[in-house]
Amino acid sequence: MSEESPRKLRYAMIGGGRDAFIGAVHRHAIALDGMAEFTAGALSSTPERALESGRMLGLPPARNHGDWRALLDDELRRPSDERVDFVTIVTPTDTHFSIAEAFVTAGFHVVCDKPLVQSSEQAETLVQAVADQGSVFGVTYNYTGYPMVRQARDMVRDGTIGTVRKIVVEYNQGWLATALEREGQKQASWRTDPAMSGIGGAIGDIGSHAENLVSAVTGLEIESLVADLGALVPGRALDDDANMLLRFRGGARGVLVASQINTGLENDLRLHVSGTLGTLEWRQERPSRLIHHRHDGPKIVLTRGSPWLSASAKRASRIPAGHPEGFIEAFANIYRGVFAAIKAKESAGTADPIEADYPTVQDGARGVRFIERAVQSSKQGQWLAFD
Amino acid sequence: MSEESPRKLRYAMIGGGRDAFIGAVHRHAIALDGMAEFTAGALSSTPERALESGRMLGLPPARNHGDWRALLDDELRRPSDERVDFVTIVTPTDTHFSIAEAFVTAGFHVVCDKPLVQSSEQAETLVQAVADQGSVFGVTYNYTGYPMVRQARDMVRDGTIGTVRKIVVEYNQGWLATALEREGQKQASWRTDPAMSGIGGAIGDIGSHAENLVSAVTGLEIESLVADLGALVPGRALDDDANMLLRFRGGARGVLVASQINTGLENDLRLHVSGTLGTLEWRQERPSRLIHHRHDGPKIVLTRGSPWLSASAKRASRIPAGHPEGFIEAFANIYRGVFAAIKAKESAGTADPIEADYPTVQDGARGVRFIERAVQSSKQGQWLAFD
Amino acid sequence: MSEESPRKLRYAMIGGGRDAFIGAVHRHAIALDGMAEFTAGALSSTPERALESGRMLGLPPARNHGDWRALLDDELRRPSDERVDFVTIVTPTDTHFSIAEAFVTAGFHVVCDKPLVQSSEQAETLVQAVADQGSVFGVTYNYTGYPMVRQARDMVRDGTIGTVRKIVVEYNQGWLATALEREGQKQASWRTDPAMSGIGGAIGDIGSHAENLVSAVTGLEIESLVADLGALVPGRALDDDANMLLRFRGGARGVLVASQINTGLENDLRLHVSGTLGTLEWRQERPSRLIHHRHDGPKIVLTRGSPWLSASAKRASRIPAGHPEGFIEAFANIYRGVFAAIKAKESAGTADPIEADYPTVQDGARGVRFIERAVQSSKQGQWLAFD
Amino acid sequence: MSEESPRKLRYAMIGGGRDAFIGAVHRHAIALDGMAEFTAGALSSTPERALESGRMLGLPPARNHGDWRALLDDELRRPSDERVDFVTIVTPTDTHFSIAEAFVTAGFHVVCDKPLVQSSEQAETLVQAVADQGSVFGVTYNYTGYPMVRQARDMVRDGTIGTVRKIVVEYNQGWLATALEREGQKQASWRTDPAMSGIGGAIGDIGSHAENLVSAVTGLEIESLVADLGALVPGRALDDDANMLLRFRGGARGVLVASQINTGLENDLRLHVSGTLGTLEWRQERPSRLIHHRHDGPKIVLTRGSPWLSASAKRASRIPAGHPEGFIEAFANIYRGVFAAIKAKESAGTADPIEADYPTVQDGARGVRFIERAVQSSKQGQWLAFD
Repeated sequence: MSEESPRKLRYAMIGGGRDAFIGAVHRHAIALDGMAEFTAGALSSTPERALESGRMLGLPPARNHGDWRALLDDELRRPSDERVDFVTIVTPTDTHFSIAEAFVTAGFHVVCDKPLVQSSEQAETLVQAVADQGSVFGVTYNYTGYPMVRQARDMVRDGTIGTVRKIVVEYNQGWLATALEREGQKQASWRTDPAMSGIGGAIGDIGSHAENLVSAVTGLEIESLVADLGALVPGRALDDDANMLLRFRGGARGVLVASQINTGLENDLRLHVSGTLGTLEWRQERPSRLIHHRHDGPKIVLTRGSPWLSASAKRASRIPAGHPEGFIEAFANIYRGVFAAIKAKESAGTADPIEADYPTVQDGARGVRFIERAVQSSKQGQWLAFD
Repeated sequence: MSEESPRKLRYAMIGGGRDAFIGAVHRHAIALDGMAEFTAGALSSTPERALESGRMLGLPPARNHGDWRALLDDELRRPSDERVDFVTIVTPTDTHFSIAEAFVTAGFHVVCDKPLVQSSEQAETLVQAVADQGSVFGVTYNYTGYPMVRQARDMVRDGTIGTVRKIVVEYNQGWLATALEREGQKQASWRTDPAMSGIGGAIGDIGSHAENLVSAVTGLEIESLVADLGALVPGRALDDDANMLLRFRGGARGVLVASQINTGLENDLRLHVSGTLGTLEWRQERPSRLIHHRHDGPKIVLTRGSPWLSASAKRASRIPAGHPEGFIEAFANIYRGVFAAIKAKESAGTADPIEADYPTVQDGARGVRFIERAVQSSKQGQWLAFD
Repeated sequence: MSEESPRKLRYAMIGGGRDAFIGAVHRHAIALDGMAEFTAGALSSTPERALESGRMLGLPPARNHGDWRALLDDELRRPSDERVDFVTIVTPTDTHFSIAEAFVTAGFHVVCDKPLVQSSEQAETLVQAVADQGSVFGVTYNYTGYPMVRQARDMVRDGTIGTVRKIVVEYNQGWLATALEREGQKQASWRTDPAMSGIGGAIGDIGSHAENLVSAVTGLEIESLVADLGALVPGRALDDDANMLLRFRGGARGVLVASQINTGLENDLRLHVSGTLGTLEWRQERPSRLIHHRHDGPKIVLTRGSPWLSASAKRASRIPAGHPEGFIEAFANIYRGVFAAIKAKESAGTADPIEADYPTVQDGARGVRFIERAVQSSKQGQWLAFD
Repeated sequence: MSEESPRKLRYAMIGGGRDAFIGAVHRHAIALDGMAEFTAGALSSTPERALESGRMLGLPPARNHGDWRALLDDELRRPSDERVDFVTIVTPTDTHFSIAEAFVTAGFHVVCDKPLVQSSEQAETLVQAVADQGSVFGVTYNYTGYPMVRQARDMVRDGTIGTVRKIVVEYNQGWLATALEREGQKQASWRTDPAMSGIGGAIGDIGSHAENLVSAVTGLEIESLVADLGALVPGRALDDDANMLLRFRGGARGVLVASQINTGLENDLRLHVSGTLGTLEWRQERPSRLIHHRHDGPKIVLTRGSPWLSASAKRASRIPAGHPEGFIEAFANIYRGVFAAIKAKESAGTADPIEADYPTVQDGARGVRFIERAVQSSKQGQWLAFD
């Protein structure tokens, strides 16, 4: 457990007020390692609710804003030793672009929830702004923060399973199995609303995680795909069930399933990567295990916290094997990667890739293209090239 | 454990000599319940090997034949109280049609391995012959013999999980992850040879089981599909990896994966059926459990041998809960179904559907069409209607 | 799958008529490999029920007896080529001794259910009779027939886990969680009745299996023990819950739990053997896996049917990995061991230890002493030496 | 996820400097919910190391002490609005008593690691001091902080599984399977040293957790016990393997195993509680599940985060079902309980038992007696009454 002395970073949160699930997760994740301080916020799109949420979370009045533009103005007025180091954007997708672009352009580092933005055009603009500013920009594809996902990635990279030939990724949830959005549930409401979520429903909310997981672990690029997106709960405007066949550059084949109507399932994200020498299986609901099926010997079960894991898997772990770590720790690992990158910037050094390990704005941009292509393929009922 | 006194049926086996995996499974399965006697055989396509296999298995010389036509001639010469009641065909697929048609036409009941035949034309001819003769004709889609598969079917039928909306079936094996066929392994050789297996590789050998499992459990009919079949081991003539998106009549969506190149996997057939009220999950490698995820209460784990299972699940079980049953018992359940149907014919009665529970020639014919459509869709790179 | 031609052995069953659970298991197990024929029987202690059961199971009238003495007389009158090769005794424990002794003395091989007899005195007499006659005498401690139990034994023997230091064995069932014996359930009635079961309840019925499993896998001998046996269902005369601490010769420690009042549990037999280099875990309800925890590397999961298993584990398996085998196959493996021993006797040869692998009358005798010592320790409330 | 505004508590940590495993866990757990601030410390028994650790963790020099007495003096000199609200004691066991007594007597609330102290005499003195002062005193038996452990407790209390009859608790680790203490590993060194750990090795370090888990879930009191404690790694002064039979007031029976020499195992704490109507099973390495075996219906799997859980199980959970929580969250739940009790004291109110849910000094004292009785029974080789 590495704990260092140095100054805590300061951050502002945009969105994530009361009743927001993911804002609190971000705050818990950041708090866990004590590396950054919650300094300022504009916690809701409704000014009163924003201010009330900030008060409840203990923000001082001067740093508690009713609106993200007010927050930005205030930050810019402050001396650099008071100013936040980064902002975390946890609003619905429709507002990501304008907020992220404004803060990047103003010289702040940014962490943004996924999907990054609502179109490839926005994504490209943002990628360019980040490049121009030299900002650190992390996208919270949090599942790649799990130690055993990083172990899987490292085992693919180092050739342990040979050449990857087949990938199956499934992300099944059940929470949208009924028309929850008509009961006023906030999460359901915005995620099923094209105005706030964009063109993708399940494909955007969780399919995007699945795509990122595949990309992060295998490094393979999708060449073409055919998708079948359905709104299986009657009356829903966006897909709640997405199924795809994938072909990767180099010849590997894949299947991707992302569905939110699997009644009674919780958060069942599974990855299966098969190569010429072995197959890896990982499941988010039991995240400390990575199963390695071999061609020429018995199955191996790798567990978090073991001395024989890769350097990056070990770095992503806090406590000994057998003492379960979970979702918040994985989330915190993404933040630790962003913090290492910010600190490397500060000291004008080069970030250690094992330390500064986080999904970037490019990963976010590719995720947006993925959603677009999936929706397009499904509408047209045919295979499409990815690019 | 129901054991009854009456006369044992007599059967002949065609194929299944030494070194044949599945012939021995059929004999073990038939022997298990002591309901039928191995009476005659033509156990290989090579006469000497056929005769040698018969001797080793204890067939009397007069009933041990070098060739299935000799077997048929001999049977027809015998009085009915010596004649076999049924023949079991466990040869490679290319010979199924001529053997099955000859025995059906000659008035015998038949059990045939899957896939049934090599084309829909053959299948239709056979369906007609069975109808004309009033034969009992079982196809050994053995996975539907598992008690918990029958329980799943009954829970779909009785509305426990509501209207089915989503199906994912995966059948992953690893035994063809290398070019085993070039090392002279007999099973690999014929299964990867179009002359013996027909147009389908993995899609025929195991995809066909997956299709049957879905059909048996849900009763849904495939309306259209898009398939991506690949020969991922270089130089292979038939697919060893098959991935499909399915649409079912009535609106349900599905994904089917059948792959034999998942290095290190064994026989990992999994079914996931999700409806408006719940989701069922079953896995062949842990066959005694059926997991029932509910929308409005905790998960339920149903186990084989429990008093609260459906009548057909209970009938398919021999020993108490917690005493594992396996593959052979499930296989034997298909035979018990065929035997019940044969006995009902004998007594000119109506077969009890819980007793005479087995996959029929129609199931076999649908399976052949499934293989054809999958291959065609993959070649054309597009969605196709099933019919 | 080894299948050989030679003559089938003939057997008689004593006990195991209608409604008897274990008789049918024995018949299924023997039938599975087609190595022996059910030739004669005295299937119940009640003559009418015995005869009726024999008729239902298809015994010819001349070989169907109302009483085991009549069966013995009849067998002795027959020429040796008609006579049964062995008898299988599946009656309640109180009758084992007189039946087994009579058949051994008369020159028959015997398979007897566990526990062997009701006292160490009887056991010693029987051991002597078997030695005098040179009989093959198997005791159906069936759990040691599982391939992965044999693999565990071989891994202990070959030093894979180093010196064994700690053993935990638990056998938990729930079927006697209520006073089922008062509802006329036959199995419950005799197993809770001291007149039929002897001094041990759960300790005899299942504790005895646990003791045998430990002995078979580790080869260690119990040096001393302290036991706490309880009749937790009010009014029960015999223990339904047994807990013990064990010390083994050489210094290893152990814990043994055998309980039939664990409401809702099925047949949860678990073995945990820990040595200086590794720990093995096996669970009967998931019998195809053996988990090997290592000190210096990741966990290994060995599965039935793999090429890298020991010779005796491979011999105990019939079908490929991933195609579940179960309780009946394990039971049949005990019989295959007995048959190999009988055939070695016939040919005056030496039995191959990998073939003739079965629990012997000595194992049975040690099991009887185990029950006695456990009961005595519990009554006296103190540690006792085993011998 | 309830997050409230009010002032953060202030705390001092004693022990837990660099290289100390558990100190960092306490800090992570406290940080997670942002409810208390790390304000002061005396982080090691070696003054230089203490000061260095404090600097690295960002303590201001004035609050960073080389010695706990200096910390206490300094705190007492400060005005109450600067003074810490509680101290957390994470030193080796030998120092717990003097530190805890001093801070309690001086009017501070205390959280102390387990085992509480080294003798029942010390424990009783401390219990009295806590009573006299009206302090809040929590003992970090952290496993009772898991939501599904609280669910189990509530299901026992509300009669769901009927009258408890049988308990099996096992806590198996492998980290002391070799003589790690001779390689200078700090954790191993003090835990195997009677001077620092007292009379108990494994029985104190983890057996004590097992005892607390049983007590917390069932509420039953141990009436008598027989223990067998061994030092299975040669040369070790304290037990590394402990096995016990338990009898509870009211008639329930139990088995407790605590062992640190199970080569290759991680942190395998399991609880099995069986009652007249059902059996509950929980396992720390898969903490989000509670399995409920029922007598009259299928098994139920309860999962963390579900709406149908008990109020206290729901309160102990932060994020939705399927998003794994782990060890740190469970640990933090103990702290949340202590904080609620402290705040209730502050406001002179009565603590809500669902909020102020934590192991008390009485639980700690009972744990000390448990260790003493186990050691005594093992030495004497006989059953002993608990009191």
